[in-house]
Amino acid sequence: MRATFMYEAGDVRVQDATDPVIEQPTDAIVRVLRSCVCGSDLHPYHSLTAAEGPVPMGHEFLGTVEETGSEVSGFRRGDLVVAPFAFADNTCEFCRAGLHTSCPDGGFFAAGVGGAQAEAIRVPQAQGTLVKLPNDVDEALLPSLLTLADVYGTGYHAAHQARVRPGDWVTVIGDGAVGLLAALSAKQLGAERIILMGRHRQRTDLGRYFGATDVVAERGEEGIARVRDLTGGHGTRAVLEAVGHLPAYEMAVGTVRPGGVISRVGVPQYEEAPVGFGSLFGPNITLTGGPAPVRAYLEELLPAVLDGTVDPGRVFDRTLPLEQAAEGYRAMDRREALKVLLTP
Amino acid sequence: MRATFMYEAGDVRVQDATDPVIEQPTDAIVRVLRSCVCGSDLHPYHSLTAAEGPVPMGHEFLGTVEETGSEVSGFRRGDLVVAPFAFADNTCEFCRAGLHTSCPDGGFFAAGVGGAQAEAIRVPQAQGTLVKLPNDVDEALLPSLLTLADVYGTGYHAAHQARVRPGDWVTVIGDGAVGLLAALSAKQLGAERIILMGRHRQRTDLGRYFGATDVVAERGEEGIARVRDLTGGHGTRAVLEAVGHLPAYEMAVGTVRPGGVISRVGVPQYEEAPVGFGSLFGPNITLTGGPAPVRAYLEELLPAVLDGTVDPGRVFDRTLPLEQAAEGYRAMDRREALKVLLTP
Repeated sequence: MRATFMYEAGDVRVQDATDPVIEQPTDAIVRVLRSCVCGSDLHPYHSLTAAEGPVPMGHEFLGTVEETGSEVSGFRRGDLVVAPFAFADNTCEFCRAGLHTSCPDGGFFAAGVGGAQAEAIRVPQAQGTLVKLPNDVDEALLPSLLTLADVYGTGYHAAHQARVRPGDWVTVIGDGAVGLLAALSAKQLGAERIILMGRHRQRTDLGRYFGATDVVAERGEEGIARVRDLTGGHGTRAVLEAVGHLPAYEMAVGTVRPGGVISRVGVPQYEEAPVGFGSLFGPNITLTGGPAPVRAYLEELLPAVLDGTVDPGRVFDRTLPLEQAAEGYRAMDRREALKVLLTP
Repeated sequence: MRATFMYEAGDVRVQDATDPVIEQPTDAIVRVLRSCVCGSDLHPYHSLTAAEGPVPMGHEFLGTVEETGSEVSGFRRGDLVVAPFAFADNTCEFCRAGLHTSCPDGGFFAAGVGGAQAEAIRVPQAQGTLVKLPNDVDEALLPSLLTLADVYGTGYHAAHQARVRPGDWVTVIGDGAVGLLAALSAKQLGAERIILMGRHRQRTDLGRYFGATDVVAERGEEGIARVRDLTGGHGTRAVLEAVGHLPAYEMAVGTVRPGGVISRVGVPQYEEAPVGFGSLFGPNITLTGGPAPVRAYLEELLPAVLDGTVDPGRVFDRTLPLEQAAEGYRAMDRREALKVLLTP
């Protein structure tokens, strides 16, 4: 089959690879119908060393079941399925608590398992991981359904962990796909005011479409001052941080209201950050978030996607054939594309 | 009057000071019946420079109203009152949200206001700050009532912010007065298992009396391993951190279960700490806490103190006259005393 590998920063190649096979009785093989490039794929695109590469890429996909291991039941060849970016058994104490990303039998796609930017993928813990979609679903819905694999569920996790509730004021930091879908999620949970911090007009316009009520293009101290101006000086009760760089964390600390919550879903590109009296402690700020247990939200978010109430698939503004995955990375890195959909 | 000042690290003096007077119509003057030395007073006792001193000391007191400003109503001369360590108007949007420590009209005693380790104290925002106690209260209850000014409310804040609920497993880091009363609070909120991390037998015995089910004397990696052993390898859902030094934070990260909460009430003696993928983010840990809005809990905690259901005043294991405040600091610093009560 053909599959995408990153050799080092900036060097993405689609090449021949061994067809995936059932390795464990809990595995399934899925033929990929749609996959995509994630904002988090850009982190190694900037930093991967040649010694670390080549690594298989892609952790978001939907497709059809091709084969299942002997311990996988309820799925037939040809079933349309979507998977969260983290596989999990969906039965352990962590999965039952809705924390599939901490499943001891689980892990992340791409890392060690094979990537989804490929013609096919092996799915460990298939029984717990795969979610069936209607086989007759309109092809036009596939992009929105694909967002359930990561970016929509991740945006939703940000809002969910911040306990966004009706009437809330929320700041969203970042106008990438996750930020925009965090705005959509905040809107779904009833937020009254959603301030989107982002500089790219096309993206922030989409953010307004999803539910943002205000857009702040300024960054750093200026951006913080602008959000405070908009909120009577105190910031918003919830801040959803969908970037992952330290300056975004600092903007979150600057825009959150005393007693409020910073909910992070941007993968932190830092290990240490301010948490002392002058940042989080003094004003009783809560810091939460992490990799989204997307599987926990999938059934909850699916109906509104299927009936067209929401269309998170709008975050895909470019579609490329798998063979041109490298161009997809380039376009996203140059911010010429918000999110790139890959077709077989 | 006589009042306590710290001149620099290790140098505490009780000396003559100007009698406090009404400065604002919202002030009251309270004659101090009981005050005490706080674990947090030991931070400047280790670090205050001569250039920073002398500073008035003490932020925990109960006493009798001596005089009230023209805008203070509902209090009469002679009323027995207790005050939270942070004064606040109790009417603003932050106070109404239970976050009195962020009241724009509020502040902390001692810092700029005058200390409570004195014969009398000026109470700003007296109407919102002071809480009346029964005038005929048994003198034996005064130590327990005094803990409502800080250490009991602070321990309760740790458990409250961690949303401790019936059946919960909780780790408490620190066997100072706040840690022990965090254990009591966790017990009151229904925690089933309370692991107290502390090395001082007399203190951890009191912790067991308050509700701790297990004691871990080891610290650092060894202490973490011990808590994990006790909890099936995963740690506890809630960790209440009542120390404030970075190694205590690191123990909290090591003992909290994935998806769990670290609730800090020990004043952080650091500004930066690990919060990235390898510490908080990867396992979806929530970090919360801050200076306790004790005023928000005071009416809730008062009845069980008055009727003797709980006796948080047991944290006082030494009583000294105000004149010997310096000896109180010394005893607590050498860990010869857990918490020192000061009488006029």
